[in-house]
Amino acid sequence: MTYFGAIETGGTKCTCAIGDHLGNIIKEETFPTITPEKTMPQIFKFFIHEHSKTPIQAMGIGCFGPLDLHIESPTYGSITTTPKPHWSNFNIVQAMKTAISVPIGFDTDVNAAALGEQRWGAAQAIDSFIYITVGTGIGVGAMVENHLLHGLIHPEMGHTFVPRKIGDDFKSVCPYHDDCLEGLASGPAIAKRWNIKVATDLKDSHEAWDLEAFYLGTAIANWTLTLSPKKVIIGGGILNKKCLIDKIRAECKSRLNGYIKHKLIIDNIDEYIVLPKQMGKSGILGAIALAQKAKG
Amino acid sequence: MTYFGAIETGGTKCTCAIGDHLGNIIKEETFPTITPEKTMPQIFKFFIHEHSKTPIQAMGIGCFGPLDLHIESPTYGSITTTPKPHWSNFNIVQAMKTAISVPIGFDTDVNAAALGEQRWGAAQAIDSFIYITVGTGIGVGAMVENHLLHGLIHPEMGHTFVPRKIGDDFKSVCPYHDDCLEGLASGPAIAKRWNIKVATDLKDSHEAWDLEAFYLGTAIANWTLTLSPKKVIIGGGILNKKCLIDKIRAECKSRLNGYIKHKLIIDNIDEYIVLPKQMGKSGILGAIALAQKAKG
Repeated sequence: MTYFGAIETGGTKCTCAIGDHLGNIIKEETFPTITPEKTMPQIFKFFIHEHSKTPIQAMGIGCFGPLDLHIESPTYGSITTTPKPHWSNFNIVQAMKTAISVPIGFDTDVNAAALGEQRWGAAQAIDSFIYITVGTGIGVGAMVENHLLHGLIHPEMGHTFVPRKIGDDFKSVCPYHDDCLEGLASGPAIAKRWNIKVATDLKDSHEAWDLEAFYLGTAIANWTLTLSPKKVIIGGGILNKKCLIDKIRAECKSRLNGYIKHKLIIDNIDEYIVLPKQMGKSGILGAIALAQKAKG
Repeated sequence: MTYFGAIETGGTKCTCAIGDHLGNIIKEETFPTITPEKTMPQIFKFFIHEHSKTPIQAMGIGCFGPLDLHIESPTYGSITTTPKPHWSNFNIVQAMKTAISVPIGFDTDVNAAALGEQRWGAAQAIDSFIYITVGTGIGVGAMVENHLLHGLIHPEMGHTFVPRKIGDDFKSVCPYHDDCLEGLASGPAIAKRWNIKVATDLKDSHEAWDLEAFYLGTAIANWTLTLSPKKVIIGGGILNKKCLIDKIRAECKSRLNGYIKHKLIIDNIDEYIVLPKQMGKSGILGAIALAQKAKG
């Protein structure tokens, strides 16, 4: 059996795990994301201890961004300009290398989750698809012909601009953009808009979910027209609201209005837009898959 | 010297050419795009005649869409659901094969143009970029890590939805979508909005160009956030309006508002968003490049 280390760093917590090459997680712990000085020693301790018992062949890190993913860059492995205090310019790959000397795979949290869903989830044998997460922020990972999309830096689709629902004058919660998706439809946006602490506490019958589906459905229509994915996987805390997925499907189809005449969109939208098969686990499984790729 | 045939089919005219492997066009003719029954015989005649004098090794077709580009599909080579009368379900690749027996490369007009700009234009040695044309319609071709983007069908980015400028209640000219880019910012949209026959006849000082830049700059910001291209090439008839490109650059940068902290966008937006080097020729040169790829 071959074992791998996996880290998923999120806005509020870091998940660390040891898993095998089949995606079985044999050990998992989470630590709060505070500062590198406070959080990293806990991560080091976990891996140094586990590695001494169950040697790992490689490690994968799926990390909140923006990140420097250019392998030839002097700052490869860094979180770059996150608004998250204390983490800007922190080089997490370099830090991990000082703790454990194994190959390290590194990508955005959402690209990792996309990879996880391709390996062990809803996108098996699909070469081009997107993985969306809607929670504290909105992030999207993209697989294009079996390559995770990077380009100039990496996609930041959560910040794409969407037309507002007529009459909606809610002030975006994004510090950068007046009418980007994250500013209008992330968990904190829903909570602020409807003056509630936890967005998913709003009842199924609340108009919030129609509006949420309007924005997410429009964004998925745009990503459909731009990336032409073969599947759209959408998860994250907000999608725990079970009434949402069908509303999103209906909105996306209505927006496209028959223009993309593919049977998957016209007849089988419920096979086109789906929940993750590894709901809540896509990211950490993706980090295991990143580790496998890093081992080569 | 090796010679190739090239066809660029557009909404109003079809350009046919013979070119060499260096992108020199040695013969070119255009025919009006009427119906397949009227237009194709002229195309056949051109190539049969030229092929008898200058044998061609392969042919490339850059075609208005939507297209069936799946090589294993029984209708590969067809124009699928175009609103253009008479061309729906016409198989242009099969038709050309009956006339001349050479390998045929086939892609969208905008993907061909992207390839042309990579081979002989503004995107040389760049592996990930987009090519936008703004004219009768708005189309975008995308190169991702040296592969033309296809996916489920192929991108149709001209139909992506953009937030309206506050106060703009112009009725979209797109028969499918109320507020897609093509419906609000294509040549016919500009002409109808300002009640003029030819959009580019509007003076540089006309407010039309600020509004046009608002929509195109917003769309480019969205594509930047989605595809993370390393360059954005924008051409087409509307870009003959020289005052437009700088306004688009300013709008895109203002929209992104410093969120994508790459020097190309922050400091060198004029190197990020550029005009085609082969303005007006990108498509037909791309068809030659498609032919070269088809020859292998």
